[in-house]
Amino acid sequence: MATFEATKITYHPGTVTREERQKALGQQGVTVWFTGLSGSGKSTIAVAVEQVLIQRGHAAYVLDGDNIRFGLNAGPKILADTRGYGEDQAKRFGLGFSAADREENIRRIGEVAKLFADAGLITLTSFISPYRKDRDAARKVHEGNKAGAIPFVEVFVDTPIGTCEQRDPKGLYKQAREAVAAGKGMGFTGVDDPYEAPTSPELTLNMATQSVEEGVAAVLNYLAERGLIRA
Amino acid sequence: MATFEATKITYHPGTVTREERQKALGQQGVTVWFTGLSGSGKSTIAVAVEQVLIQRGHAAYVLDGDNIRFGLNAGPKILADTRGYGEDQAKRFGLGFSAADREENIRRIGEVAKLFADAGLITLTSFISPYRKDRDAARKVHEGNKAGAIPFVEVFVDTPIGTCEQRDPKGLYKQAREAVAAGKGMGFTGVDDPYEAPTSPELTLNMATQSVEEGVAAVLNYLAERGLIRA
Repeated sequence: MATFEATKITYHPGTVTREERQKALGQQGVTVWFTGLSGSGKSTIAVAVEQVLIQRGHAAYVLDGDNIRFGLNAGPKILADTRGYGEDQAKRFGLGFSAADREENIRRIGEVAKLFADAGLITLTSFISPYRKDRDAARKVHEGNKAGAIPFVEVFVDTPIGTCEQRDPKGLYKQAREAVAAGKGMGFTGVDDPYEAPTSPELTLNMATQSVEEGVAAVLNYLAERGLIRA
Repeated sequence: MATFEATKITYHPGTVTREERQKALGQQGVTVWFTGLSGSGKSTIAVAVEQVLIQRGHAAYVLDGDNIRFGLNAGPKILADTRGYGEDQAKRFGLGFSAADREENIRRIGEVAKLFADAGLITLTSFISPYRKDRDAARKVHEGNKAGAIPFVEVFVDTPIGTCEQRDPKGLYKQAREAVAAGKGMGFTGVDDPYEAPTSPELTLNMATQSVEEGVAAVLNYLAERGLIRA
């Protein structure tokens, strides 16, 4: 026997309201946007915050290079190899690292984060997102949302470049310095491309002086004070 | 006093496992991919299923033209007007209705649906998605997911074109017939562009013979039988 019977289904025309969604999930959606240099510790903090939230029964999700750059915002080669895109199509839609491509990269991430937050999730994004204009546009997508503003929390991971470069987990600073020395350059943030620091972030962290646990606690306390998570 | 203390925060290196996520949400993620002609009733069913799931305390979300075509997959004009994209940039990244653009539209939706389902949500997508190849690629993104297959349920809303055209809620069939009669054409699915019916959908509905409640019950029963929602 089928579990669900048509005669017992009730629905109303129109979309689910935010209140209905909050009630079902026991929480409200928010985007926590981490920004900072490569190696600043953004992803470490974002993933640790996600873990603690999940442990506490919250619905949370991290968007970062790992799940975005090989999928939604893949480059031309991946689109050609995995999707069979022709050369023109792959080149047109695939994202590289030019200024226009970086802008489109962050635009798409802002739109997806907004959808996640609208769905009620605590959404944590971890991307360098070096340009103020692009971050402000992501904020605007949330706060100017047609069906009502969605909270957007900018977290500036302000770890000094000396520390980031010393860590250099992916060897990217080394590569960039060598490229610059060879007169080529690679448009690497902090080396030969600017990082525009946030002027009024909701929260600032510094992973040269704070432990991961301290960073996580700071983010959670901010969210609790704003009433966005259970204390 | 701060609610969260650094000394009480514990986390492990690496990402949250699917089991941890399921435990926090009390459900597992799945994408329910509705496909069918314009006016077939895809969105009506998807939104009604979402409502019933939310009433029952599930985390669910609909991706459809309303929240995708004005944001993530906006056209050139919206990108120019709302993001200040230059002409070349807007034309390059903005999506229209050519074959290549439609393919990219569905590709991005498939990637975003996968992220939602990976986050543990019951994700309902409502797009004509007329080409078999594009739907199969969306399935592959889910089932071939690196960190383990994500369930993908294709629902063919097989309402006859006569019924769809009679309803014509947005007046699009009328417009398309007139364009074809005037010798112009507009590449409208079912009129002057093909709809490739699924060959082995998980579920088939027909809104000419079924009520919305019957369609919703069919989808919920399928999900319950697969163990994807609580009975």
